[in-house]
Amino acid sequence: MKIEIINGPNLNLLGKREPEKYGYSSFEEYLKLLIARFPEIAFEYYQSNVEGEIINEIHRSGSSADGIIINAGGYTHTSVAIHDAIAAVKTPVIEVHITNIFAREEFRHKSIISAVCRGTVSGLGLDSYRLAAEALIEISKIKTK
Amino acid sequence: MKIEIINGPNLNLLGKREPEKYGYSSFEEYLKLLIARFPEIAFEYYQSNVEGEIINEIHRSGSSADGIIINAGGYTHTSVAIHDAIAAVKTPVIEVHITNIFAREEFRHKSIISAVCRGTVSGLGLDSYRLAAEALIEISKIKTK
Amino acid sequence: MKIEIINGPNLNLLGKREPEKYGYSSFEEYLKLLIARFPEIAFEYYQSNVEGEIINEIHRSGSSADGIIINAGGYTHTSVAIHDAIAAVKTPVIEVHITNIFAREEFRHKSIISAVCRGTVSGLGLDSYRLAAEALIEISKIKTK
Amino acid sequence: MKIEIINGPNLNLLGKREPEKYGYSSFEEYLKLLIARFPEIAFEYYQSNVEGEIINEIHRSGSSADGIIINAGGYTHTSVAIHDAIAAVKTPVIEVHITNIFAREEFRHKSIISAVCRGTVSGLGLDSYRLAAEALIEISKIKTK
Amino acid sequence: MKIEIINGPNLNLLGKREPEKYGYSSFEEYLKLLIARFPEIAFEYYQSNVEGEIINEIHRSGSSADGIIINAGGYTHTSVAIHDAIAAVKTPVIEVHITNIFAREEFRHKSIISAVCRGTVSGLGLDSYRLAAEALIEISKIKTK
Amino acid sequence: MKIEIINGPNLNLLGKREPEKYGYSSFEEYLKLLIARFPEIAFEYYQSNVEGEIINEIHRSGSSADGIIINAGGYTHTSVAIHDAIAAVKTPVIEVHITNIFAREEFRHKSIISAVCRGTVSGLGLDSYRLAAEALIEISKIKTK
Amino acid sequence: MKIEIINGPNLNLLGKREPEKYGYSSFEEYLKLLIARFPEIAFEYYQSNVEGEIINEIHRSGSSADGIIINAGGYTHTSVAIHDAIAAVKTPVIEVHITNIFAREEFRHKSIISAVCRGTVSGLGLDSYRLAAEALIEISKIKTK
Amino acid sequence: MKIEIINGPNLNLLGKREPEKYGYSSFEEYLKLLIARFPEIAFEYYQSNVEGEIINEIHRSGSSADGIIINAGGYTHTSVAIHDAIAAVKTPVIEVHITNIFAREEFRHKSIISAVCRGTVSGLGLDSYRLAAEALIEISKIKTK
Amino acid sequence: MKIEIINGPNLNLLGKREPEKYGYSSFEEYLKLLIARFPEIAFEYYQSNVEGEIINEIHRSGSSADGIIINAGGYTHTSVAIHDAIAAVKTPVIEVHITNIFAREEFRHKSIISAVCRGTVSGLGLDSYRLAAEALIEISKIKTK
Amino acid sequence: MKIEIINGPNLNLLGKREPEKYGYSSFEEYLKLLIARFPEIAFEYYQSNVEGEIINEIHRSGSSADGIIINAGGYTHTSVAIHDAIAAVKTPVIEVHITNIFAREEFRHKSIISAVCRGTVSGLGLDSYRLAAEALIEISKIKTK
Amino acid sequence: MKIEIINGPNLNLLGKREPEKYGYSSFEEYLKLLIARFPEIAFEYYQSNVEGEIINEIHRSGSSADGIIINAGGYTHTSVAIHDAIAAVKTPVIEVHITNIFAREEFRHKSIISAVCRGTVSGLGLDSYRLAAEALIEISKIKTK
Amino acid sequence: MKIEIINGPNLNLLGKREPEKYGYSSFEEYLKLLIARFPEIAFEYYQSNVEGEIINEIHRSGSSADGIIINAGGYTHTSVAIHDAIAAVKTPVIEVHITNIFAREEFRHKSIISAVCRGTVSGLGLDSYRLAAEALIEISKIKTK
Repeated sequence: MKIEIINGPNLNLLGKREPEKYGYSSFEEYLKLLIARFPEIAFEYYQSNVEGEIINEIHRSGSSADGIIINAGGYTHTSVAIHDAIAAVKTPVIEVHITNIFAREEFRHKSIISAVCRGTVSGLGLDSYRLAAEALIEISKIKTK
Repeated sequence: MKIEIINGPNLNLLGKREPEKYGYSSFEEYLKLLIARFPEIAFEYYQSNVEGEIINEIHRSGSSADGIIINAGGYTHTSVAIHDAIAAVKTPVIEVHITNIFAREEFRHKSIISAVCRGTVSGLGLDSYRLAAEALIEISKIKTK
Repeated sequence: MKIEIINGPNLNLLGKREPEKYGYSSFEEYLKLLIARFPEIAFEYYQSNVEGEIINEIHRSGSSADGIIINAGGYTHTSVAIHDAIAAVKTPVIEVHITNIFAREEFRHKSIISAVCRGTVSGLGLDSYRLAAEALIEISKIKTK
Repeated sequence: MKIEIINGPNLNLLGKREPEKYGYSSFEEYLKLLIARFPEIAFEYYQSNVEGEIINEIHRSGSSADGIIINAGGYTHTSVAIHDAIAAVKTPVIEVHITNIFAREEFRHKSIISAVCRGTVSGLGLDSYRLAAEALIEISKIKTK
Repeated sequence: MKIEIINGPNLNLLGKREPEKYGYSSFEEYLKLLIARFPEIAFEYYQSNVEGEIINEIHRSGSSADGIIINAGGYTHTSVAIHDAIAAVKTPVIEVHITNIFAREEFRHKSIISAVCRGTVSGLGLDSYRLAAEALIEISKIKTK
Repeated sequence: MKIEIINGPNLNLLGKREPEKYGYSSFEEYLKLLIARFPEIAFEYYQSNVEGEIINEIHRSGSSADGIIINAGGYTHTSVAIHDAIAAVKTPVIEVHITNIFAREEFRHKSIISAVCRGTVSGLGLDSYRLAAEALIEISKIKTK
Repeated sequence: MKIEIINGPNLNLLGKREPEKYGYSSFEEYLKLLIARFPEIAFEYYQSNVEGEIINEIHRSGSSADGIIINAGGYTHTSVAIHDAIAAVKTPVIEVHITNIFAREEFRHKSIISAVCRGTVSGLGLDSYRLAAEALIEISKIKTK
Repeated sequence: MKIEIINGPNLNLLGKREPEKYGYSSFEEYLKLLIARFPEIAFEYYQSNVEGEIINEIHRSGSSADGIIINAGGYTHTSVAIHDAIAAVKTPVIEVHITNIFAREEFRHKSIISAVCRGTVSGLGLDSYRLAAEALIEISKIKTK
Repeated sequence: MKIEIINGPNLNLLGKREPEKYGYSSFEEYLKLLIARFPEIAFEYYQSNVEGEIINEIHRSGSSADGIIINAGGYTHTSVAIHDAIAAVKTPVIEVHITNIFAREEFRHKSIISAVCRGTVSGLGLDSYRLAAEALIEISKIKTK
Repeated sequence: MKIEIINGPNLNLLGKREPEKYGYSSFEEYLKLLIARFPEIAFEYYQSNVEGEIINEIHRSGSSADGIIINAGGYTHTSVAIHDAIAAVKTPVIEVHITNIFAREEFRHKSIISAVCRGTVSGLGLDSYRLAAEALIEISKIKTK
Repeated sequence: MKIEIINGPNLNLLGKREPEKYGYSSFEEYLKLLIARFPEIAFEYYQSNVEGEIINEIHRSGSSADGIIINAGGYTHTSVAIHDAIAAVKTPVIEVHITNIFAREEFRHKSIISAVCRGTVSGLGLDSYRLAAEALIEISKIKTK
Repeated sequence: MKIEIINGPNLNLLGKREPEKYGYSSFEEYLKLLIARFPEIAFEYYQSNVEGEIINEIHRSGSSADGIIINAGGYTHTSVAIHDAIAAVKTPVIEVHITNIFAREEFRHKSIISAVCRGTVSGLGLDSYRLAAEALIEISKIKTK
């Protein structure tokens, strides 16, 4: 089973940016733990600060991966184009957020991409990614039955 | 470890109400599967259609359980009182939704309780409850370390 | 044919509360007239000030009655949970209001439950209930044809 | 007793326009059934697609009829002028809608004329007209007592 | 000097409709007084309840009259088409209202036609028409100087 | 092939009204050019300032013409009734605007009829009508294939 | 003189819930001080987390008490039904809040019940209740004069 | 008969400030013409840029003058306090504006004081003041009859 | 103990302005009663219709008085500057209103100064001032303890 | 004559993405048909999912092409930067949409770029591009005359 | 060269009011530093808490000074009258704010006066005034060239 | 001292794009003047039309430069992602605008990035950049003290 993780803008700074809010480990460090936890899954990881490159990656992995975990960062709240890219692929997509976006500024309370994702996991720190992976495994079980 | 699951209005109809949207098994049936999956956890289950009784239960389990999983149903979008009850207890609370509320009617896009929950899992069917349980286990590990 | 009438908050005060607005007879007195007018119908009557108990009653009568007449009182304008309860049952539900809610305060102009009711009768005093009963009889004729 | 029925724009297409939504009989056919059902009532029927002609008719029948049943069609949601015409006559006016306007597009959820009508019957198909007639008979009984 | 007075919907009922609000004399009676007061002015009077006929009349008199006094009644608050008709003619147009529209319902507080009228006189009863005539005389003096 | 062109309020003034904005030729002059350009099409032309008469014409030509080109003028932004008339006919309808309505006043930015038209052509002067005719020809080709 | 104090949701946690915001004493402890301060007044105390039970209590005490002091907690901002219950009783009702609701979250800035209460005392800690009692004594003096 | 004219902020600059918009004569020069035109009226004139001083003057002249003409300038759109001052006096008050405020910036389209003025004259240049004086004379005639 | 009472615009008219709403005694008369009731307190009284002078007085008394009672009248709903003045002083400030502002016009439902006041007492007539004084005495007791 | 076609995000998926909505042919296939239809025009085609690259291309072709046809996809509704790029070039730009954006989700009803485009063609499938080309040819004729 | 600095409400408290937010020196102390830094400029300084006096000062200095630096304090967000005063003078006006108003309460995010000022400098502490002076010097250079 | 200047979309057209609004010199020309004026500062200059590349550059220079001057162009009003990038770096950032954005279209009145910038300089032409540099020098002095 192949899962693609796509991280959006500023998530390359994880571990360096406001660590009291986002945690002290970089995403690369976390990814190693994740891979260790799910030896049966082939993870691919992509990060970009460019909205259009995220769209390119959704297109690319939309046909090759069995599931996508996306944290669209600041584009979550503004990008109709990413919304359309997710709607355009058939692979199930799970939206994740490290922080509880509903407990932050008003402009973060609305996600433009939620409506086209299969589900959302938010506010549970980096563990949100693991739970999204769990969800994708469950979804694939139902399909393969 | 003790986890309390609190289900709000109309969730007693699960399996009977619009099954194409909410699924064909009742919550009691699902609960057995959940218990089987996490033998190390003592689950308690409470369902009520009455807003105030849900508040009573949050107060009660807020001091006895190690974590609460709440699906506040229709009260999710209107209840400041449940928001306050969650804010009043120290036990971590995870909000779950069976369906993707952001892909439904406009008035379901806003959760009044998200801001005071630790995190949210939505749109992943009954599996949302399992993921919330996983999240609570992870949270308890960090605390006990 | 069995019709359930469900009255929401403050309607137990009918005849006592602002009678110049809601009329001078209690609902119980009116119910006798209604029963006399439709001898072929078995009416059941339920009143509660508790939102969740109204939901319980919709669930209960949703499978036993041939039609429901509901005046949700102040919950009309705020209750997503009652909206969901009505959507969850198959029995046809007619919404009634004694007063013309559109000629009153701004916050009464919007009904959250109308969209899931079969129809609405409002502003015609207690006669609104009779008209709703007439409508349910007509609906049952179509079905039994 | 004389009742005037006023139908607004596009209701001349009844039976032809989207019949799965509005029904398969024309209003003229329905009117015959209505007349048969209430032999004691003299019905007059007027239909126009022109807002101002509807106002003219409200003025005219406002002094000659004992009651008006109005389905203002698309003008329901936009016409302050029809609102004013209804407010200007003393005859009781009942607003009807064939479909449940609250279960349709957002812009149909607001009626500008409800506040000056005696009551509203909506969502019950063509039977809405019969119920409105019933309501006017009841109102006239109270007045003649 | 020629002044056209155009009255919109329901103003044909003046003297009959809610006289405590709009006054006890019909517009025709008032018009005689107005003509007597300004013997040097040729008044023309037009009333219609039909939005499009008011537009026709604005087009017609827009080239023949030296000034137009318009009371667009309920169309004041909704008609982009009358706005456009006024913008399309060169004759100065004064908007009048018998009542103080800002002291009435919220939906009467906004005039769509004010922006393209030369000026507005409102709230001064039928005398609003006289003042508008006075204003047009003054405007014509400036032009003829 | 038969195409009906329906022009709404104030478009009878074309060539006279604010020519720097709407152009110097009347619609009748333009229509001759259009007819010359499409000798294979039978054009019918209808103009009215009256909303209800435009509805009447949509009903009439909705069954006789192969396509309708409508410029609803100021009614574009306010008329639910024209929206309903277009929805009620099966003939494809193309909405046109001479000016770019999105570059004008705020209240012109919203079209109530766009959602039920097949497509929209705006801002291209009188050439918008020709392009709409081109579009209708293309649509008819697909159907006749 | 009899004064009923009605406390809404979560106020049973007083002294335990976020004490730095709501204070360290339970309401029962405070009530003893209040009773001691006004020996001439018979206080009754009622608390419930259930909206409908609060309505029941308003109905009950609305005819037996000389004044009601209500802190509707989270229902303050959402309950049309409690608004209606207060409007339905003749006993003067004073709204109190322990904290300054206008200095907290946006959704607490609007009280739905204020409009039907005689007055409001907010932001003065538990002393708000004493001031409300003082106000009721003053009101009763005026009536008994 | 005594008429008080009250001018608000920046109107002391008349004739100097943007003369192409507000005209080339100062208000003092215009006042002489006005006095000449109405020899039977005693005019008093007051101008201040201070909101509170305008309120003081409304209080003062509210009991001594037979009518007030007020141009509240920029306070028109923001001052609840001037609204209250006008509501507090019995003398009829006419609101005037030199320019057509509805054809200017959005924030000038709403007058907070209109609702408590007897009427409004706007957009007619300095002649707005003369028309307001005419209106006050007419009002006083009715009263003295 | 020194308490400063600051009254804003139009409160100098108390007893004269709409007495059925605000009461028949002037504030000076009421002040005598207040002084008599609290012989241990030195009251200072200031009234101005000028927003900036109210700010001056808040600055002045903010360092000399032990508490401020402010009724900002119409400035309550519009003045960010008074909000800032209150925030700038350390003395506790209590906001009072004679009438229930939430039962009046929409634009009075929002207070801009509440958030920076210690508490609010409204709707209890002139007795609101006494209760505010009581509250300040209680606050000073806590501080001196 | 040189025409540049610029396609925004997700339009590279044409023919693959939701073909029942967007059609079954890829844009490259359609482009061949377009080129065949207008042998006298040199088409250039550019597609990118990256907002800034679209801006680069507008800058580049803004000085070399005689006209631009742009389908900005999801950026249509959010991009002030593309709006500015179009405003910055002198070449006429026509906005096109394959689907009728006004008949889709609420957030697609507003185009941020329309106001700076010469015109808009929407809802007519891929034929929208041909019509835009026709419009540009017509515009160039006027210029070259 | 002559520069007038106008400070609005509460800025007389600088150094005393919330110093952690606004700084520890009074404006008078800062002014000395400013004068020392620009020996070639004649500074005038005016502070008032009264909106109308600020308008008076803008009028006065608008013709005598070569530039105005204004910090309108709380009036920034509410005063149409100061907006008009700035628009009425020809002298260039620069708006300054000590704090970053966009990082504070929602109601401080909108400046009513920005649109008529030449430019704005905000968030840079007292140094904002120096930068505004620099800007005025630069503007005067361009003019004198 | 090292200062990075980051220019967003369309600013590469400076001198060519609407020069009457943005000025006639290119940014490169202006930069030479700036460098000449501050010989002690090492300026770096970066421009991109791509949102994500601007984020990359903020990350890069956020750790190497002593200050950033950013003109985010059209992204100012829409980019939560740039907001987050600025919040993520410790280097002080000053926002600049060449034009007075508050005097332009409504959608330019709101900056999403202001809240996380140290300060803003807008409306002063290219001189805004110089003033921002001055501000950064001042900030660095305070830090190095």
